[in-house]
Amino acid sequence: MDTRSSPIHLRLERLREQMAVQRIDAVLLPSSDPHLSEYLPGHWQARAWFSGFTGSMATLVVLADRAALFADSRYWTQAEAQLAGTGIELVKIATGTAAAHIEWIASALRPGQTLAVDAAVLGLAVAKQLRDAMDAARIALRTDSDPLTTAWPERPALPAVPVYEHRAPHAPLSRNEKLVQLRAAMARHGASHHLISTLDDLAWLLNLRGADVDYNPVFLAHALVSADAVQLFIGAGKVDAALAGVLAADGVQLRPYEQARAALAALPADARLLVDPRRVTLGLREAVPASVRLIEAINPSALAKSRKTAPEAAFIREAMARDGAAMCAFYAWFEGALGRERITELTIDERLSAERARQPDYVSLSFPVIAGFNVNGAMPHYRATPATHAVISRADGVAADGLLLIDSGAQYLGGTTDITRVWPVGTPSAAMRRDYTLVLKGTIALSRTRFPRGTPSPMLDAIARAPLWAESLDYGHGTGHGVGYFLNVHEGPQSISKTVPTPEMAMEPGMVTSIEPGLYRPGRWGVRIENLVLNVPAPGDEFGDFLAFETLTLCPIDTRSIDHTLLREDERDWLNRYHAMVHERLAPLVRGAALAWLEARTQPV
Amino acid sequence: MDTRSSPIHLRLERLREQMAVQRIDAVLLPSSDPHLSEYLPGHWQARAWFSGFTGSMATLVVLADRAALFADSRYWTQAEAQLAGTGIELVKIATGTAAAHIEWIASALRPGQTLAVDAAVLGLAVAKQLRDAMDAARIALRTDSDPLTTAWPERPALPAVPVYEHRAPHAPLSRNEKLVQLRAAMARHGASHHLISTLDDLAWLLNLRGADVDYNPVFLAHALVSADAVQLFIGAGKVDAALAGVLAADGVQLRPYEQARAALAALPADARLLVDPRRVTLGLREAVPASVRLIEAINPSALAKSRKTAPEAAFIREAMARDGAAMCAFYAWFEGALGRERITELTIDERLSAERARQPDYVSLSFPVIAGFNVNGAMPHYRATPATHAVISRADGVAADGLLLIDSGAQYLGGTTDITRVWPVGTPSAAMRRDYTLVLKGTIALSRTRFPRGTPSPMLDAIARAPLWAESLDYGHGTGHGVGYFLNVHEGPQSISKTVPTPEMAMEPGMVTSIEPGLYRPGRWGVRIENLVLNVPAPGDEFGDFLAFETLTLCPIDTRSIDHTLLREDERDWLNRYHAMVHERLAPLVRGAALAWLEARTQPV
Repeated sequence: MDTRSSPIHLRLERLREQMAVQRIDAVLLPSSDPHLSEYLPGHWQARAWFSGFTGSMATLVVLADRAALFADSRYWTQAEAQLAGTGIELVKIATGTAAAHIEWIASALRPGQTLAVDAAVLGLAVAKQLRDAMDAARIALRTDSDPLTTAWPERPALPAVPVYEHRAPHAPLSRNEKLVQLRAAMARHGASHHLISTLDDLAWLLNLRGADVDYNPVFLAHALVSADAVQLFIGAGKVDAALAGVLAADGVQLRPYEQARAALAALPADARLLVDPRRVTLGLREAVPASVRLIEAINPSALAKSRKTAPEAAFIREAMARDGAAMCAFYAWFEGALGRERITELTIDERLSAERARQPDYVSLSFPVIAGFNVNGAMPHYRATPATHAVISRADGVAADGLLLIDSGAQYLGGTTDITRVWPVGTPSAAMRRDYTLVLKGTIALSRTRFPRGTPSPMLDAIARAPLWAESLDYGHGTGHGVGYFLNVHEGPQSISKTVPTPEMAMEPGMVTSIEPGLYRPGRWGVRIENLVLNVPAPGDEFGDFLAFETLTLCPIDTRSIDHTLLREDERDWLNRYHAMVHERLAPLVRGAALAWLEARTQPV
Repeated sequence: MDTRSSPIHLRLERLREQMAVQRIDAVLLPSSDPHLSEYLPGHWQARAWFSGFTGSMATLVVLADRAALFADSRYWTQAEAQLAGTGIELVKIATGTAAAHIEWIASALRPGQTLAVDAAVLGLAVAKQLRDAMDAARIALRTDSDPLTTAWPERPALPAVPVYEHRAPHAPLSRNEKLVQLRAAMARHGASHHLISTLDDLAWLLNLRGADVDYNPVFLAHALVSADAVQLFIGAGKVDAALAGVLAADGVQLRPYEQARAALAALPADARLLVDPRRVTLGLREAVPASVRLIEAINPSALAKSRKTAPEAAFIREAMARDGAAMCAFYAWFEGALGRERITELTIDERLSAERARQPDYVSLSFPVIAGFNVNGAMPHYRATPATHAVISRADGVAADGLLLIDSGAQYLGGTTDITRVWPVGTPSAAMRRDYTLVLKGTIALSRTRFPRGTPSPMLDAIARAPLWAESLDYGHGTGHGVGYFLNVHEGPQSISKTVPTPEMAMEPGMVTSIEPGLYRPGRWGVRIENLVLNVPAPGDEFGDFLAFETLTLCPIDTRSIDHTLLREDERDWLNRYHAMVHERLAPLVRGAALAWLEARTQPV
């Protein structure tokens, strides 16, 4: 295939023309925006535009005569397909080696050459690493130019969706109370000012929500907090006059989105600015006057929002019940239609999302529905498209025996949900049931774990893996991520995974985390069983405070796919107690076929 | 009490006179020697001499008008007792905050004042931290003087015990083969020279052993390895002429112990020196010419010696059987004598050590016997003394009902042992049996864990704790440490503990580690059940290589103290299989009362 006919080739050609004009030898395009978010507005999807690779994480490096995309194993299949014919090399990197491209650049360029990267989308910690490596290789680093501007005339504008209030009772703590807490934390750090670029921190702190990116109810802004005011840098027209008045009453002043740099440059010479180096870009950092003392620490709001209050936990339990009721209705339909109607992975997405949308206080999905049948379930980040999707059921029977994995969730005014279940279609094989049961053992093992308050969350990861490890099996992703409160479905600081623990990852009461071990047989099937859990105090005495997990997610876990020879009695007890609770909590909310389905699927084993 | 009457007061007075003469405002006395060893020869026990505190880890800081000892919770009781009347403050620090004294010094001294510390006993990594903090506080750091020299005329000389060869078959790999491997690793690092100060690395590399410190069969030396020679810096008279000839044939040249600095100073200007910054002192580092490039990495010998070869593993199994046979003989006597003879914690030390000393290839104990009855068992680092020890049995019955904890081990030419068991005396209470059983569940849970090769060893810690956590219980020490091969009973790099994982802590085949969860009820009783395990390959396929633990330690685990309502069937199965193996392996080695005891204590439950 002649790579010159690809639209990507033409895009890269325009970029290279700009590089030549600006005397730039390489351009680095990370997957990030000025807020270092997980989901990016189109305006900052330069990497996807210039490479054609649409996965969420990858780094593109463009040189005059070659280009390379760096992606980890989750994306190799997709990247190989999407890069075919573009002439861009795929560099396969190990998970957790996100800086592999830095070495590559250092050896691809010669001393004296120039690398350009937009400082506005470069995290401070990453920027330091990049600068050190380029200094060592004597490569000039330009962060003050944006060759994209002219090379990308089609670049989407910034989103202009209105911002709205997250009000009581769903937001139990007022904006003012949160600001008082934040300023107390600033005082403890000895900070006079605090810069926040992280979108979910801002949404939480100001009790505001938006829709500038898909799935995460956040809005683009920066904030500069001082002892008596908050300057909120936000796009024109996003806040209406009434809301502006409400915000002004709490000392929140609206400023144009573009003026964050100027405000930082105008900081008093003796200011002490609190920033989280992993949550602020080089572009903003460089605007701070040299005389200002930087205090580096995790955003206090990141810790505060991770610890849900008792009223928030009560709303989350309500949201979970609604989410569970929606799933009962969906699954009742699904099981009735199986083998009698045409059902594809796309039908599932439509039907399940429609049931959720009917629930009170529903706002949106919290991430794209993953419905993967057999081979598609083996791809943890799979998403069915109109062009490629599997058929599960036809009018004359199931399309194939196997396992259907459904990972889905929603945003409600009172919480965020995220659940994965696996359902049998036709007659799953003995090997499928064995895999299913081993994963279930992992979910159960961690769900019932009690642990000292302050335990580094990564320490818990092995407990969910042990039942799979016992059979020489494992999964390539983390066991659990933090979940926001009507906010991002992925939030920190806790992480039940193989990551290296840091002090802020300590488990504290009120944190909500997923437990989602899995098992993926590439080309065959995948299993993942996921619940959200809440850190609640457990009885403790002479050995200090302990925490237990309260399972929040309310939805039957299929028992027909279990290989009962592999389940211990205590594991069976846990499952039966869970199903008794699911039945008790969901039965009042469903009726008809949904109730019948709930009754059938919560029978003790 | 008048502190002036204390001998410590007089020692400190002499030190302070020297400080005044040398214009030093503070002296820092760490618990370390030029080899950064765990056990220190008397020559470097300045901290113990000037404070009177004899515990193994603590830091003393002496100012003109006050002094403070920094120790973690393991040592508080002992330190409070030993510091009483000395006028030295005890600063209680949290485990893992070994640098707490640095902040204390920075605030206790004024800018412009001077702190002295002997660079010869200061680790490079610690030195960097200290220097940064003193620079920030504008406190001068003197590392080129040793005020101890004149203030401590009683200072013991360096040990002069002879060094001997660790020969084949017990040392299956020759000195020459190990040097070839080491030089290959140096080449991979691009190093022309390599400095080794760590005593067990040197003993392993050169197939030599000594007795310069108690329990660890090592000798004081440094080595400078180049492509064609090894300069071994070692005290005069420690190596006899015959051994010197053997070493010379392998390119090992003997040099005076004091000349390591001079040899480093004489390195060629273009040398590239490999050092482990946690294993080399500032004193030696400062001798290296500025032109020499330093390559920092873990000592290759530390990784190599942690991975026992198959012939080494075979000798370890033999040593374990001998160790087990000694324990059968000891415990047979103990149970027969219980309630009929006077038995104290000291009797146990004597009798058990004597049984071990009778075994073939026995060299020494591998650490002081810990025999703690009831309340004494609650102190993980307890050691009975002639002045204070508990009585367990009298001629007319047991002294008290309860639990006896015995932690002991030995050095054999073919391996190092370390085992903890707990035995019932009279009728242990229900609460004691519950604690015993929960700890046993932890030992079993981790012993049967299979895990991917390369798993960071700290990840496994939670698996042993989970059964205790489930009842809101925990223990304050790590779950497991690496163990040497006829070498130090504590060796790295692996560590099953709450420590922050580093890449070299990855689990690899051949590593020997302890599994020793515990539970301590201060003032009541303590439980710890410890086995050594070997990392052996487990069947693996599409999910990569897996490892399992082969339990090496051979000695019954008491079943009379078990609360059977707490043990699951699969746990009982593990215990019965373990006892069947213990019986099979030890029965041929024991007879008479010892065999009868083995039969009784390995009955299935």
